[in-house]
Amino acid sequence: MRTHYSSELSANMDGEIVKVAGWVHSIRALGKLIFVILRDREGFIQIVVPKQKVGEDLFKKIKSLGVEDVISVKGKVVANEKAPNGFEILPLEVDVLNTAKRPLPLDPAEKVPAELDTRLENRFLDLRKPKIQAIFKIRHEMLKSVRNTFYEEGFIEVHTPKLVASCTEGGTELFPISYFEKEAFLSQSPQLYKQMLMATGLDRVFEIAPIFRAEEHNTRRHLNEAISIDVEMAFADDVEAIKMLEKVVHNAIKDVLKNREKELELLGVELELPKKFDKITYDEAIEIAKKKGVEIDWGEDLSREAEKAIGEEMGGFYFIVDWPSDIRPFYTMPKDDRYCKAFDLMYKDLELASGAQRIHLYDLLVENIKKKGLNPDAFTYYLEAFKYGMPPHAGWGLGAERFTMVLTGRENIRECALFPRDRHRLTP
Amino acid sequence: MRTHYSSELSANMDGEIVKVAGWVHSIRALGKLIFVILRDREGFIQIVVPKQKVGEDLFKKIKSLGVEDVISVKGKVVANEKAPNGFEILPLEVDVLNTAKRPLPLDPAEKVPAELDTRLENRFLDLRKPKIQAIFKIRHEMLKSVRNTFYEEGFIEVHTPKLVASCTEGGTELFPISYFEKEAFLSQSPQLYKQMLMATGLDRVFEIAPIFRAEEHNTRRHLNEAISIDVEMAFADDVEAIKMLEKVVHNAIKDVLKNREKELELLGVELELPKKFDKITYDEAIEIAKKKGVEIDWGEDLSREAEKAIGEEMGGFYFIVDWPSDIRPFYTMPKDDRYCKAFDLMYKDLELASGAQRIHLYDLLVENIKKKGLNPDAFTYYLEAFKYGMPPHAGWGLGAERFTMVLTGRENIRECALFPRDRHRLTP
Repeated sequence: MRTHYSSELSANMDGEIVKVAGWVHSIRALGKLIFVILRDREGFIQIVVPKQKVGEDLFKKIKSLGVEDVISVKGKVVANEKAPNGFEILPLEVDVLNTAKRPLPLDPAEKVPAELDTRLENRFLDLRKPKIQAIFKIRHEMLKSVRNTFYEEGFIEVHTPKLVASCTEGGTELFPISYFEKEAFLSQSPQLYKQMLMATGLDRVFEIAPIFRAEEHNTRRHLNEAISIDVEMAFADDVEAIKMLEKVVHNAIKDVLKNREKELELLGVELELPKKFDKITYDEAIEIAKKKGVEIDWGEDLSREAEKAIGEEMGGFYFIVDWPSDIRPFYTMPKDDRYCKAFDLMYKDLELASGAQRIHLYDLLVENIKKKGLNPDAFTYYLEAFKYGMPPHAGWGLGAERFTMVLTGRENIRECALFPRDRHRLTP
Repeated sequence: MRTHYSSELSANMDGEIVKVAGWVHSIRALGKLIFVILRDREGFIQIVVPKQKVGEDLFKKIKSLGVEDVISVKGKVVANEKAPNGFEILPLEVDVLNTAKRPLPLDPAEKVPAELDTRLENRFLDLRKPKIQAIFKIRHEMLKSVRNTFYEEGFIEVHTPKLVASCTEGGTELFPISYFEKEAFLSQSPQLYKQMLMATGLDRVFEIAPIFRAEEHNTRRHLNEAISIDVEMAFADDVEAIKMLEKVVHNAIKDVLKNREKELELLGVELELPKKFDKITYDEAIEIAKKKGVEIDWGEDLSREAEKAIGEEMGGFYFIVDWPSDIRPFYTMPKDDRYCKAFDLMYKDLELASGAQRIHLYDLLVENIKKKGLNPDAFTYYLEAFKYGMPPHAGWGLGAERFTMVLTGRENIRECALFPRDRHRLTP
């Protein structure tokens, strides 16, 4: 049905017979001449239809086409300076592969942007807009780049279960599920599993997979189902984990800049390769927030207001390190009696990634579980892995949709998921 | 904690100071000489500890080590023809990073294989065995290769939701879940979503993600949570989908053969690059089964017995094509009034992948949904995508664990998932 994408054609191919396929983006009849703009994934092609050249039958067939009909066109490439991209197609045969009902609930050619809710409701039409497709082409490029970095750095891809028996981190925001006779939950993070894998000798693992959080919030930065890019490294500490994260982010931006220039332009994003990743401590972050008038006490987690104040001051990518142990999960390695070896990667006011060196010592881990008011009995399988030779290890999780927000300049995370799941949206 | 993996060292580095880290695989004290075999992801290293050279303190420290303790060793590479791989390490410093409780519930150095249940119960120890790790290294290689083929062939990576409002294929074997006030299900396949994406112009998409099936069976070929490699291609038919599947499988085997020779040898697998993929029709398959004494009527799905008979006759990889429409899902494109454009990829008696050209015509699709006794109202969002310009399309799903079974010569699918989920197993 197709020999070339639109982007694979050029004026140099003048005279060649090709086959293109896609959607009727627009159709304009000027008496005995019709112009059809055909849209495919890679761009647009002008089909020029002079009645006297194509004949009565084909002219009539093309004239009857409507916008968003799906066609395949066999035709001759004709160089023409006046045509977009310097060429057009003179059709020899046209196959109407499917027709589109009209009116469309959302017009892919429309210049005025529709409301996000309308767009998500009609996502299959929304995604026909080159600008919207650009988001997912950039996301694809990012994921490809991230994996390539993992391959180069000797990571092994793993898949840990999403159906789990116990609450992964002792939190309450989990989707319960009935697993035959048993109670189960949807995994909120591969955390405990990737840590258990550190006891296996697989050494460096990564997983890119969905996580599920039954959180009630309905913000522009949260999804109830999201893709998490997870890493765990044995014989490594927080400093090495941070370095790996910097490398992954750096390479992804580099690859998007290199391979998705057109898409960045469509989105109007001026992406910059970060020269360095600043690091501030939690204490410094709190001071910045306070100076900007945010009411916050030492030991509190960063409020949205505090994040905004800190983001305003710092701009771009930066790390917040040296967090108080009390506000980080039980598996975080302490640095001293107040602080721990945790870090967050921020972009302005958006938390992109979270990580730490983990506790690898059984006794300390059990103590910390209890300190958080959790019951070690709920973590039997996890704790077993710490009894028989668990190496020091560190890791992080990077949100794929949030990273995509940064790369594509989107303000709402729903724009960066094909079919987002939020407090109210479970369809399409 | 480490400068080199075991595999990165050699006799050529004689005299160099390096740092290695891993587990004490074995320790043997012969009076004033100790031999420690250190195990890391890439292999084994001999640490030789002559009391007179390393000094009293270090000798004592090393002598007190037990199997599966985690250590980091700074030492000198010493070429020695008698040592395994022609070199050993003379230690200068040893850090004991963690100790192992003894006895171990499962001994990674044990030659006698434990029962699968015991192994899965202690998976973190089971995975320390090089032979077991080899399965997941090969799985990693396969996934990497599969993605590379997709990149080369112009596919875009997508992530479709695993929390869905309606039954994806009208089946009953779904895990129900409560999504805030709403009823939801875990997706049994990205089928309907990847088809909807064909209406977007993304053109060729792939997804590698978990699928969830609440099936009661407890066989050696089924998991209740598995990883599916899914593909959908617009402007393509079943023949092109089959070709793409052949390419993906061929490249994966080629890459595993090229890059995982050591692992294949460990597993004792003689993997062969398929020269061609035979194709038989469903009718021919039924005839083969009948000839071998299996009781089966035309129009029935292949029983386990029939699969075994056909697999015995065919061997290796082959396709079964031209299935009766009645036993394939509603979205399968008919070929005529009895047969449809569906195919299965088999390896001996194991179904690896299933695919088809899909119906892209709204009216035919609605008719087929009704014919299967399903209610089109349950497919509103899905059907919308067929009204406004859906191109012809085809695709398939390939089971990652089943493909890994073939690549690693395993008979039980549980061996090919790190933490398998089956009828009775929800932990670890």
